Amino acid sequence: MKDNISKQEAIFYSHKMAQLSKALWKAIEKDWQEWIKPFKLNINEHHILWISYHLKGASISEVSKFGVMHVSTAFNFSKKLEERGLLVFSKRENDKRNTYIQLTEKGSDLLESTLNEYQPENNSVFKGSLPMTEMYGKLPEFLDLSALIKEIYGEEYMEILERSLDNIENLDMEQPAIIEDYKRQTKSS
Amino acid sequence: MKDNISKQEAIFYSHKMAQLSKALWKAIEKDWQEWIKPFKLNINEHHILWISYHLKGASISEVSKFGVMHVSTAFNFSKKLEERGLLVFSKRENDKRNTYIQLTEKGSDLLESTLNEYQPENNSVFKGSLPMTEMYGKLPEFLDLSALIKEIYGEEYMEILERSLDNIENLDMEQPAIIEDYKRQTKSS
Repeated sequence: MKDNISKQEAIFYSHKMAQLSKALWKAIEKDWQEWIKPFKLNINEHHILWISYHLKGASISEVSKFGVMHVSTAFNFSKKLEERGLLVFSKRENDKRNTYIQLTEKGSDLLESTLNEYQPENNSVFKGSLPMTEMYGKLPEFLDLSALIKEIYGEEYMEILERSLDNIENLDMEQPAIIEDYKRQTKSS
Repeated sequence: MKDNISKQEAIFYSHKMAQLSKALWKAIEKDWQEWIKPFKLNINEHHILWISYHLKGASISEVSKFGVMHVSTAFNFSKKLEERGLLVFSKRENDKRNTYIQLTEKGSDLLESTLNEYQPENNSVFKGSLPMTEMYGKLPEFLDLSALIKEIYGEEYMEILERSLDNIENLDMEQPAIIEDYKRQTKSS
């Protein structure tokens, strides 16, 4: 066990994390924008639909927390989605202070359409992970990254993430053999 | 070796990566803003100074690439830094097409002052990594994340990152025993 981390090492670490994290998020942001563009949604709007879909309704403060966006951002984009008839606002009997959002059938259908339109082969993070997948025999788990986010954002953030992930496993979808395609491509190139 | 990744698994993976990455980047962004606020710099401006400092001058296209920002963003914020006398623009004899920036002494001093003002104990990513550090005996390396970024952004991105990291190791700084402070805190709480 190393007892002492120098200021240099701390800056080194922070700088490395900043560069890696910015690069990763910008790649994800770009892919995400491309993916949902045909649905006339921006990332915040799609993220709100997604959170509300997976939590089967959510308060604005939950959307803000889990979506890592400002409360006013969560509220304003929810308003826009309400205007398009994709969700409704409500108060709950046992919690009058918070505003809740709930997807309408139209909102829920739209979110499912986006998921069906998702093309892994257009996703640079997914594609960039395939060589590691060859090595590990599965997609990388990023356990350190999960542990770090849990430290920063707390247990609840990870619980909501796991709930939303569980829901994805229960979705009904076509099943293309992506890895097979990848192998074919790398062989022929 | 798993031969087949279903569309579900791909969405599951992308969603998890999007949530973790957004959360990480937003935490880093917030810390970064707080850190450089006293110097009247925004993140883009500080990032440009940083890149130019470590590469000992850089072209706008290198700043854009390594800073993961649009060329026009790199150019416009460089202009603002030029107006403050923190850097100068130039062309190089052997490369007339690209515009280069070079820090002035004032720019270089300012960047060094920000590094000296960096307080690891105010950095949530650094603090969030300390429990893992206790476990591993060193700061986590995020090898999977590095491998992924290398796949997406290419060899050159990682080379520039390593060059800029090497320079940090050679900086002359005070050496507070951060881990010791952390241990004292966790013991007393």
